[in-house]
Amino acid sequence: MTILSARSLGLLLDAWRDDSARAAYLALADRIRLLVLDGRIPLDTRLPAERELANQLAVSRTTVTAAYSELRDAGYLNSLRGSGSVARLPHATSRNLQDGAPGMLDLTKATLPAIPAVAEAAVHAAQELPSYLGLSGFDPVGLSVLREAIADRYTARGLPTDADEIMVTVGAQHAIALVSRVLLSRGDRALVESPSYPHAMEALRDAGARLVGVNVSSDHGWDENGLEQVMQRTSPTLAYLMPDHHNPTGLAMSEELREKTVALAATAGTTLVIDETMAELTIDPGTPHSPFAVHGVDGSRPILIGSLGKSVWGGLRIGWIRAERPLLQRLVRGRNSGDLGTPILEQLIAADLFSDFDAILAVRRRQLRIGRDHLLAVLGERMPEWRIPSPPGGLTAWVNLGSPVSSQLTLAARNEGVLLAAGPRFGIDGAFERFLRIPFAYPLEDLDRAADALARAWASVGRYTVPEQTYLAAVV
Amino acid sequence: MTILSARSLGLLLDAWRDDSARAAYLALADRIRLLVLDGRIPLDTRLPAERELANQLAVSRTTVTAAYSELRDAGYLNSLRGSGSVARLPHATSRNLQDGAPGMLDLTKATLPAIPAVAEAAVHAAQELPSYLGLSGFDPVGLSVLREAIADRYTARGLPTDADEIMVTVGAQHAIALVSRVLLSRGDRALVESPSYPHAMEALRDAGARLVGVNVSSDHGWDENGLEQVMQRTSPTLAYLMPDHHNPTGLAMSEELREKTVALAATAGTTLVIDETMAELTIDPGTPHSPFAVHGVDGSRPILIGSLGKSVWGGLRIGWIRAERPLLQRLVRGRNSGDLGTPILEQLIAADLFSDFDAILAVRRRQLRIGRDHLLAVLGERMPEWRIPSPPGGLTAWVNLGSPVSSQLTLAARNEGVLLAAGPRFGIDGAFERFLRIPFAYPLEDLDRAADALARAWASVGRYTVPEQTYLAAVV
Repeated sequence: MTILSARSLGLLLDAWRDDSARAAYLALADRIRLLVLDGRIPLDTRLPAERELANQLAVSRTTVTAAYSELRDAGYLNSLRGSGSVARLPHATSRNLQDGAPGMLDLTKATLPAIPAVAEAAVHAAQELPSYLGLSGFDPVGLSVLREAIADRYTARGLPTDADEIMVTVGAQHAIALVSRVLLSRGDRALVESPSYPHAMEALRDAGARLVGVNVSSDHGWDENGLEQVMQRTSPTLAYLMPDHHNPTGLAMSEELREKTVALAATAGTTLVIDETMAELTIDPGTPHSPFAVHGVDGSRPILIGSLGKSVWGGLRIGWIRAERPLLQRLVRGRNSGDLGTPILEQLIAADLFSDFDAILAVRRRQLRIGRDHLLAVLGERMPEWRIPSPPGGLTAWVNLGSPVSSQLTLAARNEGVLLAAGPRFGIDGAFERFLRIPFAYPLEDLDRAADALARAWASVGRYTVPEQTYLAAVV
Repeated sequence: MTILSARSLGLLLDAWRDDSARAAYLALADRIRLLVLDGRIPLDTRLPAERELANQLAVSRTTVTAAYSELRDAGYLNSLRGSGSVARLPHATSRNLQDGAPGMLDLTKATLPAIPAVAEAAVHAAQELPSYLGLSGFDPVGLSVLREAIADRYTARGLPTDADEIMVTVGAQHAIALVSRVLLSRGDRALVESPSYPHAMEALRDAGARLVGVNVSSDHGWDENGLEQVMQRTSPTLAYLMPDHHNPTGLAMSEELREKTVALAATAGTTLVIDETMAELTIDPGTPHSPFAVHGVDGSRPILIGSLGKSVWGGLRIGWIRAERPLLQRLVRGRNSGDLGTPILEQLIAADLFSDFDAILAVRRRQLRIGRDHLLAVLGERMPEWRIPSPPGGLTAWVNLGSPVSSQLTLAARNEGVLLAAGPRFGIDGAFERFLRIPFAYPLEDLDRAADALARAWASVGRYTVPEQTYLAAVV
């Protein structure tokens, strides 16, 4: 059981008091409820004792007692004999667990619907399947036909690659988790961008890592001095970075900083793990970056992670790892304790799609450009006080709300029928309460609906009521 | 980096001296090479210093020095500045990583080729796919249509089950790893059968567990007193058991012992995790057992794991977990850090196959009965000194060789073109050197070839030469 200290909960509760005339205990209960709902307080976590939390927050113990009691009544806390108060969710039902809570617009996921070509590729692949049915099917490395297609694409993008340097995974998250598990030991430091992708941070922590952060902001890009200092001071075992269309900001790292990052990593003995899931989802014209591993020298090139989850479809679970052979062999060996391979049919579909991948990307880029421009226009019109930088690529805008109300706004938006991931989900320790990630990879009518809901939520911040929706959202 | 103590390596090297006239250093090098090849010494493990190993084995330091030097020359050890001697594999190539090393008969996998119905189901599923393309595709729980089919099958087998109690996973190993990760904390005890399934033990260890074993033997079945004592003495956090066609012995647990196991677990506060991957692969006629969770009381029923990997095909990566709702919700939440869901198309194929699952099982059981009876006949004829109990179900025979030579025999069989997993891979700490798992779920001509190769290998034990094959086998 995880135990949450009063100090840690205090950090997560940053700016929990709203401006409403409501009693403080209700505001406190609401904020803790959101933290449970969006996963910042994992289920089965023990919350701090009432007296400790009261001291930490500088409120009366009665306030905390009343908030906990409210949460217990609503089913978000369990008081177990000798175990204190433990986070839970009320009434788990099939519906809560399912994709697309009915009636809600789910913007926790930065995804596009499948490209239609998937259907045709699936039919082709099903026809090819019989010639693979004689294999055991347990395939931790990946089919040659797919690994060659992935390698060829790297080569075409400027990074000569052999199929031997590729392994296929069940999506990018699976790849991140595998690399974390194989490379990290308990207590190792792992560098991440701040903000970064929540489930990558979870995977790194699951593997025992202590996270250290380097700031990325729409105003200043990557904090170059910060990167240098953190690398030198902490010598992280690995650094997980998204230089091409960083999630959530959509930024791309300059060539100069790529060179410098590789040099710093070499000095610090840090393995670079570069998530390029969004690398080809560039929106603004310009020279595309080559795969990150063009930098560096043989023997210590960065590990690259790729995926079709964003470019093609999330329901096609195909990702991959590009690594030099000795490291790739370690990763393949390490895989067996987690799963025994990637489905064969999925791989055949992916191989088929690579035969005309540029056409797929052209469709995607156009969809993303239209979505981005539309979202920026409608949000700018409705919430002129927000700062909404235009991301050059990726699937999300990283909006600066101007005040630390992201969690409040997210709660209020739930009541308006729109699910969003609050800014702090993208931080290491509850930062980014001033920010909100809004994906634009949705039909324009959904973006309009989201803007309407956000405008109402924005107007109501401080006056919202308690949602009973217990939707379990993965952020993608 | 993992560090292997001289004592631990000594245990792994149990009975490493063979009867040949070869120098001791060659025998030692061969045995260490096998341990690296079959994964008992993971890659990147640091081996003990020469002096320590020499003391442990009671040989001269020169012998160890010569053995290490031999291994270095062959590419199995790397001597790194300040890091001692580290296990590696020579010349990692694509071929080594691939399914089916050319020319070799791979009996490390207890699998059947796909049932032909998979091809047809894939075509159907591809036709259904378009109506799912509007979903995000990130599906950590599973499609309703499949969860209902799985629930219905449990209900039909005597365990009333609702789709809400099912989550779909990427095969059984993925389910085992997920349950381990969510339920275990560092240092917790996990009970396993001895012998047990190697990758399950790896998953439990990855999650921080210390393993405790309960003996299972073809002569005496499950060690009931041992189970009682270990449960009472160690109060394990979870117990991972395969009561129906235990891998590798093929045994089934009695109804009485199931009841007792549930009672013991309730007293010890142990969560039972029951792997029923092989539960429906019964060969000998008789009353089939109901799913294990018919035992116990609501609120603490055993977790069940199932899979189509053995009954249908390993290349169809569909497994599942049946658990009571609160626990299932924890597992779904915990999944995001490892992967973001099961492929949609695979799920549609699986749902299609469940519509006529009894027919599939009838085919499988017949194949298994024919394979088992054939293997027992040919091995009995060629190696009358082996003890080969007839397993009532499952895919493997657990052969008692009569002397502790399983690793030697496995090495020799490699030279004869047959890959097998040596007995100690199924033990917690290198036990079972007298045993060999031989799968019979192969075409009869392959079983004949295996018997020929094993007969030659058996005759040559002690006279084998060093294999250069660096095949990376997952044991399934």
